Amino acid sequence: MRITVLAGGVGAARFLRGLKAAAPDAQITVVGNTGDDITLFGLRVCPDLDTVMYTLGGGISEEQGWGRAEETFVLRDELAAYGVGPGWFTLGDRDFATHIARSQLLAEGRPLSEVTASLCERWRPGVRLLPMSDDRIETHVHLDDETGGVIHFQEWWVRLHAAVPAKTIVPSGAAEATPAPGVAEAINDADFVLFPPSNPVVSIGPILAVPGIREAVSAKTVVGVSGIIGGAPVRGMADACLTAIGVETSAAAVAAHFGADLINGWLVDEQDKAAADDPALAGIEVRALPLYMRDLASTAAIAQAAIDLAKELSR
Amino acid sequence: MRITVLAGGVGAARFLRGLKAAAPDAQITVVGNTGDDITLFGLRVCPDLDTVMYTLGGGISEEQGWGRAEETFVLRDELAAYGVGPGWFTLGDRDFATHIARSQLLAEGRPLSEVTASLCERWRPGVRLLPMSDDRIETHVHLDDETGGVIHFQEWWVRLHAAVPAKTIVPSGAAEATPAPGVAEAINDADFVLFPPSNPVVSIGPILAVPGIREAVSAKTVVGVSGIIGGAPVRGMADACLTAIGVETSAAAVAAHFGADLINGWLVDEQDKAAADDPALAGIEVRALPLYMRDLASTAAIAQAAIDLAKELSR
Repeated sequence: MRITVLAGGVGAARFLRGLKAAAPDAQITVVGNTGDDITLFGLRVCPDLDTVMYTLGGGISEEQGWGRAEETFVLRDELAAYGVGPGWFTLGDRDFATHIARSQLLAEGRPLSEVTASLCERWRPGVRLLPMSDDRIETHVHLDDETGGVIHFQEWWVRLHAAVPAKTIVPSGAAEATPAPGVAEAINDADFVLFPPSNPVVSIGPILAVPGIREAVSAKTVVGVSGIIGGAPVRGMADACLTAIGVETSAAAVAAHFGADLINGWLVDEQDKAAADDPALAGIEVRALPLYMRDLASTAAIAQAAIDLAKELSR
Repeated sequence: MRITVLAGGVGAARFLRGLKAAAPDAQITVVGNTGDDITLFGLRVCPDLDTVMYTLGGGISEEQGWGRAEETFVLRDELAAYGVGPGWFTLGDRDFATHIARSQLLAEGRPLSEVTASLCERWRPGVRLLPMSDDRIETHVHLDDETGGVIHFQEWWVRLHAAVPAKTIVPSGAAEATPAPGVAEAINDADFVLFPPSNPVVSIGPILAVPGIREAVSAKTVVGVSGIIGGAPVRGMADACLTAIGVETSAAAVAAHFGADLINGWLVDEQDKAAADDPALAGIEVRALPLYMRDLASTAAIAQAAIDLAKELSR
């Protein structure tokens, strides 16, 4: 069984852990969002790729869901002593090492896909992890305030806690990008494609914005897992992102946003089961089940439901 | 009193600590060797500048003489886990932060002299620390073995422990370089110039190789402190460097290598007092005194002797 998953960060990584448990023999390819990537302290940081890599490789901070376990913060304190910023983005020492290694490999002229594969040789995540593109794409947020400023997604998310409303959110550079080597093949060759409960705007959205990826995904059976339960994001501030693109924060509205031309199946939590009767979701098979990823068993059950629905819809 | 000192790493830094104690009211400018500088893990490392900065700023590892006190090595272990090298050069976490800060400031387009001043705002070394040049100069070692290879000084020094004989040692890039802003003025305006017991070949040599510096220094009263005592370097492997350029490892031979056109006074250890009668040192005033820098008091006494001799020779 070949499964391709479009992935953001924490939600995707946890879902993937369940997917590996549900389908231990599947060949899983993860197409990771790189729109969150940012250059900090002169180093290239890829938060979503790293969260997947650390989580599946056993190095994640379980409490945070991102960053390394047993982390220390010597460099943070030293850099602050030098007055070298930005101070709003904290990187731990172990995490810093990943970014130093990545930046050194990139500086040697290797593309991000190769560099990611090289880093994964250490972590052995048990999936093939591909960046959506080797080209630089950065999600930018156009602020809906008196400044009208355009800032990097990370600055909006981490520094401003998404508290300043966004007018629009744009994956800058995506239109000129091409999918990384292996991405199109991984989608074309997959038995089906899954969307984990990642942020539809800033995680799944940038991946689909790379020319060719949406078209390839649309040709496959696709099942998505809602990251919105009971009208609120399970984690993070997806509501602020959805508002920015004019989409209501509900499981049904997110499915309608993706559309029946893209997704075939949609898993919602039991409290959102009314979505199954929503006329806006015509052509999308909706199934309701417990959707909180409380532990590995509950997460594997969600992944199994996604697999089952995909198989059913593939017939 | 205005004193300008040409400085290498550990020996210079310790001498400078003594000089500050001996002349607390003097304006001391340190022209630091950058020939040892190297790019490691994509970061610009300036070992001699940092050794002076850390030593005078109270951050040095007293045991090693270089690197930071209370150092940890999380990054070293992480980078090794990624297989990202070089493995032969170990940087501690606190030290890494300095190189990250420096590299970020350099990447903003600021010259090394400005960046060094910025880092010194934290350390407040009590001297003005200038790199010899903002241009990139790297000391290269031509190996005298069957490979005939040319390697960076650090690789010869740290990886090979200077055990492979050197055919010649060249400050690559020096001929095309210019002194950093302030260097020529600091020499011209000084009451006198001091050479601490730094390596004459790979510490003082590269500084003098920057066009204009030797000429400026030659016009001043210069007193040097021998780093060779009793035919052996007090610290480090200066003998291997001296052999490479055809100079005997002795206090007298090093003075003759600098020459009477460059230095006016030369401090040697009591066991090397015969140098005072060496005809090769005609025109150089040699004084013998205890020259081991055992502690701050003994180091300050050496610095005071250098000051006294410089004043005497300036009359």
